[in-house]
Amino acid sequence: MAEGRKIPVGILGATGAVGQRFVQLLVDHPWFELTALAASERSAGRPYGEACQWVIPGDPPYQVREHLVRPLVPDLPAKIVFSAVPADVAREIEPQFAQRGYLVCSNASAFRNVADIPLLIPELNADHLAMVERQRVQRGWPGLLVTSPNCTITGVAMALKPLDAAFGVRKVFMTSMQAISGAGYPGVSALDITDNVIPYIAGEEEKFQQELQKLLGHVSEGVLTPADLVVSAHANRVAVLDGHTVSLSVGFEQRPTPDDAIAVLRAYRPALASAGLPSSPKHLIRVMSEPDRPQPRRDRDAEGGMALSVGRIRPCPILDLRMTTVIHNTLRGAASGAVLNAELLVAAGYAEA
Amino acid sequence: MAEGRKIPVGILGATGAVGQRFVQLLVDHPWFELTALAASERSAGRPYGEACQWVIPGDPPYQVREHLVRPLVPDLPAKIVFSAVPADVAREIEPQFAQRGYLVCSNASAFRNVADIPLLIPELNADHLAMVERQRVQRGWPGLLVTSPNCTITGVAMALKPLDAAFGVRKVFMTSMQAISGAGYPGVSALDITDNVIPYIAGEEEKFQQELQKLLGHVSEGVLTPADLVVSAHANRVAVLDGHTVSLSVGFEQRPTPDDAIAVLRAYRPALASAGLPSSPKHLIRVMSEPDRPQPRRDRDAEGGMALSVGRIRPCPILDLRMTTVIHNTLRGAASGAVLNAELLVAAGYAEA
Amino acid sequence: MAEGRKIPVGILGATGAVGQRFVQLLVDHPWFELTALAASERSAGRPYGEACQWVIPGDPPYQVREHLVRPLVPDLPAKIVFSAVPADVAREIEPQFAQRGYLVCSNASAFRNVADIPLLIPELNADHLAMVERQRVQRGWPGLLVTSPNCTITGVAMALKPLDAAFGVRKVFMTSMQAISGAGYPGVSALDITDNVIPYIAGEEEKFQQELQKLLGHVSEGVLTPADLVVSAHANRVAVLDGHTVSLSVGFEQRPTPDDAIAVLRAYRPALASAGLPSSPKHLIRVMSEPDRPQPRRDRDAEGGMALSVGRIRPCPILDLRMTTVIHNTLRGAASGAVLNAELLVAAGYAEA
Amino acid sequence: MAEGRKIPVGILGATGAVGQRFVQLLVDHPWFELTALAASERSAGRPYGEACQWVIPGDPPYQVREHLVRPLVPDLPAKIVFSAVPADVAREIEPQFAQRGYLVCSNASAFRNVADIPLLIPELNADHLAMVERQRVQRGWPGLLVTSPNCTITGVAMALKPLDAAFGVRKVFMTSMQAISGAGYPGVSALDITDNVIPYIAGEEEKFQQELQKLLGHVSEGVLTPADLVVSAHANRVAVLDGHTVSLSVGFEQRPTPDDAIAVLRAYRPALASAGLPSSPKHLIRVMSEPDRPQPRRDRDAEGGMALSVGRIRPCPILDLRMTTVIHNTLRGAASGAVLNAELLVAAGYAEA
Repeated sequence: MAEGRKIPVGILGATGAVGQRFVQLLVDHPWFELTALAASERSAGRPYGEACQWVIPGDPPYQVREHLVRPLVPDLPAKIVFSAVPADVAREIEPQFAQRGYLVCSNASAFRNVADIPLLIPELNADHLAMVERQRVQRGWPGLLVTSPNCTITGVAMALKPLDAAFGVRKVFMTSMQAISGAGYPGVSALDITDNVIPYIAGEEEKFQQELQKLLGHVSEGVLTPADLVVSAHANRVAVLDGHTVSLSVGFEQRPTPDDAIAVLRAYRPALASAGLPSSPKHLIRVMSEPDRPQPRRDRDAEGGMALSVGRIRPCPILDLRMTTVIHNTLRGAASGAVLNAELLVAAGYAEA
Repeated sequence: MAEGRKIPVGILGATGAVGQRFVQLLVDHPWFELTALAASERSAGRPYGEACQWVIPGDPPYQVREHLVRPLVPDLPAKIVFSAVPADVAREIEPQFAQRGYLVCSNASAFRNVADIPLLIPELNADHLAMVERQRVQRGWPGLLVTSPNCTITGVAMALKPLDAAFGVRKVFMTSMQAISGAGYPGVSALDITDNVIPYIAGEEEKFQQELQKLLGHVSEGVLTPADLVVSAHANRVAVLDGHTVSLSVGFEQRPTPDDAIAVLRAYRPALASAGLPSSPKHLIRVMSEPDRPQPRRDRDAEGGMALSVGRIRPCPILDLRMTTVIHNTLRGAASGAVLNAELLVAAGYAEA
Repeated sequence: MAEGRKIPVGILGATGAVGQRFVQLLVDHPWFELTALAASERSAGRPYGEACQWVIPGDPPYQVREHLVRPLVPDLPAKIVFSAVPADVAREIEPQFAQRGYLVCSNASAFRNVADIPLLIPELNADHLAMVERQRVQRGWPGLLVTSPNCTITGVAMALKPLDAAFGVRKVFMTSMQAISGAGYPGVSALDITDNVIPYIAGEEEKFQQELQKLLGHVSEGVLTPADLVVSAHANRVAVLDGHTVSLSVGFEQRPTPDDAIAVLRAYRPALASAGLPSSPKHLIRVMSEPDRPQPRRDRDAEGGMALSVGRIRPCPILDLRMTTVIHNTLRGAASGAVLNAELLVAAGYAEA
Repeated sequence: MAEGRKIPVGILGATGAVGQRFVQLLVDHPWFELTALAASERSAGRPYGEACQWVIPGDPPYQVREHLVRPLVPDLPAKIVFSAVPADVAREIEPQFAQRGYLVCSNASAFRNVADIPLLIPELNADHLAMVERQRVQRGWPGLLVTSPNCTITGVAMALKPLDAAFGVRKVFMTSMQAISGAGYPGVSALDITDNVIPYIAGEEEKFQQELQKLLGHVSEGVLTPADLVVSAHANRVAVLDGHTVSLSVGFEQRPTPDDAIAVLRAYRPALASAGLPSSPKHLIRVMSEPDRPQPRRDRDAEGGMALSVGRIRPCPILDLRMTTVIHNTLRGAASGAVLNAELLVAAGYAEA
């Protein structure tokens, strides 16, 4: 785990499912060197390969098996820390790390809706990074804290950001059909989901409006004004391993035709700030024209699982446009979002090797 | 196949999947005696048990195995005929049967949207039967023709009819998650639907608005005025064997609270005209209060598969109410609807033994 | 919960998944009256409807919702107790109940292989009940203890018992494809079994030989001589909700033809001792002739889930016959087996109202 | 489709599912240049992109979309042809192509069991190629014909070949749990396999013994002596997308311990003849030690889907060893096998650019 000029990074909550995904993404990362694995008291002091029950595909990378797990205390040999701890733990320790100078990239929901904490998808709202200056001054943090959004709203935001810039998104009807991997492991019982749909995911529908307003909001002088839009959501769990599908109806300030929307989505290029981030896909948005696509199993892996697929763009008899989106919830969602955020921090000059 | 004082009935298209369902429903029916099985040239003249490849659970009933299949010609020994032929065949032969005096109860989509042909769900709109008098006069038919709706809209209409009477339905957002049995047999390939969602069902979304307007319409002096409402639909196929789930948002003329809506749904009793029909369930609408219900596998069989389950009734940030419905698409939908229609015809005095 | 001349019965471990199944089977039982629900300290003293999270289809029967749960102590107002506690608890408390005079019908594995405890499937080996006399004498129990077998071997034993009587079973190759409900609730994670097979079920393969030897064994003067046979098993978990399928190859003392075996299976009638037991199906064994049957989804519910389906009986190039069996693991297996055992005890005069 | 010094190859039956897989494998092949796509009359003369309904993941490669499909006549501009036509067509045209000088690598079952036609898995029995000399002389063919085996027996043969060499395989019990993709597209109806097992695959069990005897047979002076072994098979279809799982019990001439078998499997290296073939995996056989592996979803993609995974190697109470194997049926099976055979032909000097 030593490789010279890379930036030393650590993982908080390294033994859980999302923590394991972080390990996988970071062990060969071109910019980062994984130098600290931290977890709860139960795991601290033990070799990582022993302390953690590996639940994602493959095996724990050989580079980390012997690495001793540290406690969740802000004295890790790292500049950036990725947080995959539960929300209640995050609420307590993430500010401690920022206070001690760490750049905290969190995947937890604890601070997503706090006014001075940016909620980032680098290819969409890299300019929201401007919020951190104010955050550091106000809180007296030598470090900083940025967060990444819920995996379902990530896909919706990727489709709506370009359309919002062009036509002004005002109303969003969304019915999600979410994959079982979104519930973690062991998560959903096979007795509940086989030959079934569960029309409810605890706490999920409530998150969508607030996170989407923040993601599409406007930052001026470091202060965010949330987007003026309403979200009505139905969250369903379906028998799909990976890939969240959303049936979406959208009302705009200026009604676009389907062709207008398709042209805007096809032409979208992320702002310069996110250009060249190693985890960002070559093509962020795939607009499909087949009548029966996108589908989660067939489209979730597009661009290594980092792109959004959108299709069936057609008029809506009540709002303006209907469409269907598919996003890979555990590749684009979860850990990758936080890693992208860290890459953005580096590109923006917040961390050097 | 002889039992005295019952009304003799026949099946058009008796060898297909829906035709087999008709056979199953009619072979022990308290009011009807199955006296004629008709199918295309290929099957005509052969014993039913041989002519038909039985695809629904169980075996062909012993009473019909030796019964010779007749051609699709209007000289069947029956008063009522149930039609399960494809739409293009229905368009041609159903009027021929009505012309020759048969009471035609059709499950085909061919005439559902024709002005003088009633589209019936007896427990909801038995009064629409008044349209047939005008139909018979105008067309000079000694018989008559009534139809039953698409199985997805059947469930939506069952939830909305009571609410429409109380609050006036104006806008309907519906995202369906439809079972594979809705596509017939062999229908959906396992390679398409395993670990997947297909966000498209050919021709499906288009039917919903027109059928719902008709089902909730008003009949006066035998003429139907369709309900003044708009439907925006997303039709999806999911990996469920039976049971269509719909995520529904509804806008009303007068905004009800969730409790208002629950009270109205709980209090709903079908009009007298449909009371006592043998195929009608004791409780038509089940309002569920568990946060994660209804679910297709756990609720589709309520009341022998003939009831609607509705739950998660809650406010909608864009329209007025959100809710989830589940209906058994092959029990309540398809053949049973047409049998209920025939029972209504008998109760209304159109046929005697 | 009072109904006169029925025999009072109780459930040990009434709040778990199998305990709930017992409640469902006993609440309307023609011979038994459910008078005691006992569970661990955590539940004792609370109303059943509150203490137990209902995981099987439907709702807790209204008759038991207010019933106070008792502790697992042998002072229950009942003659017969059904045991659904974990093996380690069973090992401790089942003898205590027998010692205090209760007739214990256990579904736990703790005593299945103890020499003087009968392992019963009433339609197969009702004569093994003779073992209890010796058990009572040796152990000084005023009560008694009988057990029911593993749900996978139950199906195999039902196919092999008639064949053993006719041809002498010597070698059994069995590959099971077991339903997820066999692992209880929440049991198998959907992330483990969707689009997958798990070729391992902890502790399962080891049970088969010993239990089958005992089930097909010979009891003389109250002493069991296990059947002289060898079992080689492969236990697999597959994505099926209910119904264990077994691919079976069998070697006999005298090689039968497939037709010989079919004739014997078709002719099998359980011994008089089990005739008329309310939970026993009218036809115990269904021999199917379709080339692709039995199948778990299509055949598990035969005879209310209490019958064995067997098909594809054909020669085996290594042993003598190959065949496929399907049994409903949670209806015929688990609770029903123990209830059948209690019915047998009543029929044999061990309990009166 | 032109690239200089590669060997020109064609596909017979290029528009079907296996034909499409051939296209995918050959379009960027390091040794072969795809110069001819042939199919039935219906497709001949049309551009490939139009003539074929692409059913495998992804899209038809751009290099072949405009390529005109040719008829199935032996005048294709190619040296090697890959055959993916149905068995009855193969029976007729494959000899015609060999007669006209083509090297025919067939995936069809038509000639697999003909005495002078080799059935090849290059990493196992490359020496069987010696049979073609005799074939060419006897039949007077300037070309030649080689075949690849059934995809289920491919996995079994990969596990048994090393064990046969060391201990002599005599008896094989195999219960397969086969993926739905093995039945082609649309293949298995979702109504048949959801929540189900189908214990029958037409014609499948019969193939196993003959093909395994041939694969493990001995070739001397160009004549094959089939291996002296017996196979007893149960073929089941399960709800898995890709990956055939087999529960296997094996009897040997000399009984090995599990550790002996593991050592032999781990040490196995294919004969020199197949070294360096581009489609052959780096590690042919993965021996797994986890108690619940291999599993089709988690192990089918090992080594790009070209390796065999084997695990649970343990004693068998009836024969000698039990084990479980998993093979990717559409990657290692089907088209790849025939491409590997062609690579072997090139390595052996039968074709030059």
